[in-house]
Amino acid sequence: MKKIILDSDPGHDDAMAILLALGNPNIDLLGVTTVGGNQSLDKVTYNARSVLEMAHATDVPVHAGCDRPILRPLEVAASIHGNTGLDGVELPEPTRPLDEGHAVNWIIDTVMSNEPGTITLVPTGPLTNIAMAARMEPRIVDRVKEVVLMGGGYHVGNWSAVAEFNIKVDPEAAKIVFNEPWPVTMVGLDLTHQALCTPEVQSRIDAIGTPLAHFASQLMDFFRKSYQDNQDFINPPVHDPCTVAYLIDPSVVATRRCPVDVETADGPALGMTVADLRGPEPSADECHTQVATKLDFEKFWALIIDAIKRIG
Amino acid sequence: MKKIILDSDPGHDDAMAILLALGNPNIDLLGVTTVGGNQSLDKVTYNARSVLEMAHATDVPVHAGCDRPILRPLEVAASIHGNTGLDGVELPEPTRPLDEGHAVNWIIDTVMSNEPGTITLVPTGPLTNIAMAARMEPRIVDRVKEVVLMGGGYHVGNWSAVAEFNIKVDPEAAKIVFNEPWPVTMVGLDLTHQALCTPEVQSRIDAIGTPLAHFASQLMDFFRKSYQDNQDFINPPVHDPCTVAYLIDPSVVATRRCPVDVETADGPALGMTVADLRGPEPSADECHTQVATKLDFEKFWALIIDAIKRIG
Amino acid sequence: MKKIILDSDPGHDDAMAILLALGNPNIDLLGVTTVGGNQSLDKVTYNARSVLEMAHATDVPVHAGCDRPILRPLEVAASIHGNTGLDGVELPEPTRPLDEGHAVNWIIDTVMSNEPGTITLVPTGPLTNIAMAARMEPRIVDRVKEVVLMGGGYHVGNWSAVAEFNIKVDPEAAKIVFNEPWPVTMVGLDLTHQALCTPEVQSRIDAIGTPLAHFASQLMDFFRKSYQDNQDFINPPVHDPCTVAYLIDPSVVATRRCPVDVETADGPALGMTVADLRGPEPSADECHTQVATKLDFEKFWALIIDAIKRIG
Amino acid sequence: MKKIILDSDPGHDDAMAILLALGNPNIDLLGVTTVGGNQSLDKVTYNARSVLEMAHATDVPVHAGCDRPILRPLEVAASIHGNTGLDGVELPEPTRPLDEGHAVNWIIDTVMSNEPGTITLVPTGPLTNIAMAARMEPRIVDRVKEVVLMGGGYHVGNWSAVAEFNIKVDPEAAKIVFNEPWPVTMVGLDLTHQALCTPEVQSRIDAIGTPLAHFASQLMDFFRKSYQDNQDFINPPVHDPCTVAYLIDPSVVATRRCPVDVETADGPALGMTVADLRGPEPSADECHTQVATKLDFEKFWALIIDAIKRIG
Repeated sequence: MKKIILDSDPGHDDAMAILLALGNPNIDLLGVTTVGGNQSLDKVTYNARSVLEMAHATDVPVHAGCDRPILRPLEVAASIHGNTGLDGVELPEPTRPLDEGHAVNWIIDTVMSNEPGTITLVPTGPLTNIAMAARMEPRIVDRVKEVVLMGGGYHVGNWSAVAEFNIKVDPEAAKIVFNEPWPVTMVGLDLTHQALCTPEVQSRIDAIGTPLAHFASQLMDFFRKSYQDNQDFINPPVHDPCTVAYLIDPSVVATRRCPVDVETADGPALGMTVADLRGPEPSADECHTQVATKLDFEKFWALIIDAIKRIG
Repeated sequence: MKKIILDSDPGHDDAMAILLALGNPNIDLLGVTTVGGNQSLDKVTYNARSVLEMAHATDVPVHAGCDRPILRPLEVAASIHGNTGLDGVELPEPTRPLDEGHAVNWIIDTVMSNEPGTITLVPTGPLTNIAMAARMEPRIVDRVKEVVLMGGGYHVGNWSAVAEFNIKVDPEAAKIVFNEPWPVTMVGLDLTHQALCTPEVQSRIDAIGTPLAHFASQLMDFFRKSYQDNQDFINPPVHDPCTVAYLIDPSVVATRRCPVDVETADGPALGMTVADLRGPEPSADECHTQVATKLDFEKFWALIIDAIKRIG
Repeated sequence: MKKIILDSDPGHDDAMAILLALGNPNIDLLGVTTVGGNQSLDKVTYNARSVLEMAHATDVPVHAGCDRPILRPLEVAASIHGNTGLDGVELPEPTRPLDEGHAVNWIIDTVMSNEPGTITLVPTGPLTNIAMAARMEPRIVDRVKEVVLMGGGYHVGNWSAVAEFNIKVDPEAAKIVFNEPWPVTMVGLDLTHQALCTPEVQSRIDAIGTPLAHFASQLMDFFRKSYQDNQDFINPPVHDPCTVAYLIDPSVVATRRCPVDVETADGPALGMTVADLRGPEPSADECHTQVATKLDFEKFWALIIDAIKRIG
Repeated sequence: MKKIILDSDPGHDDAMAILLALGNPNIDLLGVTTVGGNQSLDKVTYNARSVLEMAHATDVPVHAGCDRPILRPLEVAASIHGNTGLDGVELPEPTRPLDEGHAVNWIIDTVMSNEPGTITLVPTGPLTNIAMAARMEPRIVDRVKEVVLMGGGYHVGNWSAVAEFNIKVDPEAAKIVFNEPWPVTMVGLDLTHQALCTPEVQSRIDAIGTPLAHFASQLMDFFRKSYQDNQDFINPPVHDPCTVAYLIDPSVVATRRCPVDVETADGPALGMTVADLRGPEPSADECHTQVATKLDFEKFWALIIDAIKRIG
């Protein structure tokens, strides 16, 4: 079982990532940490707790983290996720109180108190918490098993011509995370735009027939409309669970090793994840970063549906 | 017949662009202007004159232009084009003396003294001369028919992960050229990496049997080796004549209209041509820039071979 | 006699610089070139011609130059110089037509056709023309005697906390000019804020009693009000003629040799002339730039008043 | 009594700041936090503990903080402070163990557990810890009484033409600290270059006759030589205690209220504290930042000498 920390800003697709992590027997979700991103920290923290409540996972702690990017003011994605960050569903009141302790400290403590090489960080929002943790306690960089993040894109953007939301809103945090020498897998838009929730997929979710499946389906309804209205998509790309799917079964997500840096200057490429795909693929010794390239669509959705079923 | 000014820094593929422009009956090559780029201004100016000599085109004037980028020091591409800028061939001594008058002034005078909408600028080197001309005489922007340039790339770089040589060495000039409201067609690496001189193509050039064909073939020999040694290519991409081929027959080069800006900050995306390919394609009224996407390989090389034959 | 080219954007204090250059027997004003700055190119060019007309100097050519900065859009100083660029006076219609030939070309031709080391460039506006000339014809850099410019400031700004107007509106041009190896004297705000037109000074101008003196006095009336309303001054600093005064008599303007660079990044120091005043003063061999530090107020105004008298 | 947290990187002048804080009856030094700066975190943390030991202050906790700037690699000032960070003296072995808890967390906890408006932060090194604390717990910004920092300069630099060491090595942290709305007093080089340890001053320190006075004098010997060898000073400027002196008695340090921002772009002004001193002085309501301008030399050294005497 893989021990992971989900660092997220739910968010419709973050919610799906939480469900996949909870419902898959190969993932041990140690906790959810939250960060200002898709919506304000208060809202996404409530959403995280509420999604866990919905999934009967009151044993999973939630720690709130940074409420804004390191240098820049917070920019939220209300056009995609609505005013609450999880518009389109009725959220249950969480019974578990918010856990004490700042997300950054809890990440550090968890990594330092577990065996080296056992904890995987899975950020699906801006990388503020992860960058802050690496600066507060540099030893976590060697101790973490790997970082598998949703963000960026090597050939496509969604928050500008070439930048993705999570990276663009805190590019300095992203630069820190990509430049620390831990193994980083960037699950970017190149990959996640393949993870479309088609009507056929959604009807399979509906067919599960549980309240949780209904909840997931409602999330997808709202998400579809957001992407139709704002991003010229027909079906919504369900970004965040692709990270968890890769961890469950690497054959779901093909990757290519290459150097990745982040543009932090305030020009037209601000927030771009600059991947150097020229030449032959480097080895893991030469290069600690890789990018996700190709999704196995069928396997991916089979994992999601299975997880929703297992949670019950 | 299309009246064009070739603004270039020969360079092996620039030489092929000159030959295509000279040998095609639909192109009226008014003159060649030179710019420091692949090699120093002195060298590329000599090369331009020598290639015209080789092609019996002593009626075509050559005007030397800027010897360095606007803000940054000159960086040459000796690894690709050798110490002379045209290594690998014996260059004939030009009989026509270098024409007087700075390239920038000659471009301005030519555009202003011809009918509006009749002159096409075809830059195949750094955009220094073109940018300087637009600043010296802003009226040329409305008067030029269009700018069809080799440079940049929307998904690939050759002088960094995401930047192409011509743009990266003078990104400020490129920013000026892309942001003036004239029609700009960017024939970038996405397109030109399809224009490979394969052994099969080269054997067709060899079969022409003239000294000029032999000269062209020798250029390709050197160019192939440069690209094998420095850029992980098997066959060399013959970038610059793709611009002229597009002007001769637009069906050779498919294009897609989209906004393009240039990153000038000194980060990892320096010199990138940032193309916004999201959403539906804008109209020509909405967007004055377009990028080349797909080459008709057969038509392209047929044009080149025909031109070499016609020159004789 | 010192041969100078005034490159200017009149402008109230530019007008005073023209008068000082015309009326002093040690200055040979070869011509006035104009640049978009205090107002649009059309307006400042008209103003230059009109001031020369007012001073009976119809033998002095005027060449219009660049109408905007190299990279950035033109920003004018209407708050200081009014809508015409010379508000507050009635301008005579120039009898001499505008001279043909772009300012940049005329500067180059004048420098190249005179003996080396004989021509001094005196820019009192944005440095666009001078930078363009250095890029168009790099040989002028060795051939010019020196550049004595009004612009910048080592401890004070007027267009931002630390930047002066001429530098801030075209910082890239300024960076070019300061970094070419010709001798550069920066007559910045540290110096020119000492060149205040006090009521006592102005009464001495009034006392001359000529129409030209009245014209100069009216310029100062408007300029005083602009500086009172916009810059928290009681008396207006008459910047531009300080350059000419230094050339007439170096004892009027004390200088200190030090490296100077220009900040071109879009942060709070954009357009600052960064002078390194630490440590002992370098020699002229070590350092080609110097900054003006202390004005001899009495000598300065005596030169101005003498010039207005001599013109008649 | 003023409760302060000294956030420092001792450092010879940091040591003097610690002694002044310990020996003055109006200061309650709650703790010392350390940050990588003048030397590596390990070294400066040891130095802080050792200086406290030397001053019999084993009741004062020391918490280690960030070992490097937020974005940039650590650059130390070995040319000024030597290989240990406190070269020139023999340091006693600290008897008090290093306190547990990260400096950033301890700062946050101390501020949040004391009454609002009672804690003053006194950073005398790079602002990394303070910036991180403001991001981890934004509520401290309202709760802190004020920030009185050594760093920057409005007219002078020491680590570049216009930048001071503490700001230049972590300009992003400085930008955060200056832009949060707490009251900030910048005690920069303009002020601290007046705090020279002259031979006369040093002989008064020597005359105290205690081991601690001898220790302080030895610090000054090394510091004098560093400044003579590296910064063209005759007597060393003792920067850091000026902050504490201002808190003890504001009449020792004159201030001027003005906006201050930090340049973070990688040009010649990188790390400059850009102070806008134009126009009339704003009120405290209009402007939360002020800069130190004039030192009362006699009062300053009298405070230092008194503190060393009192410690015994």
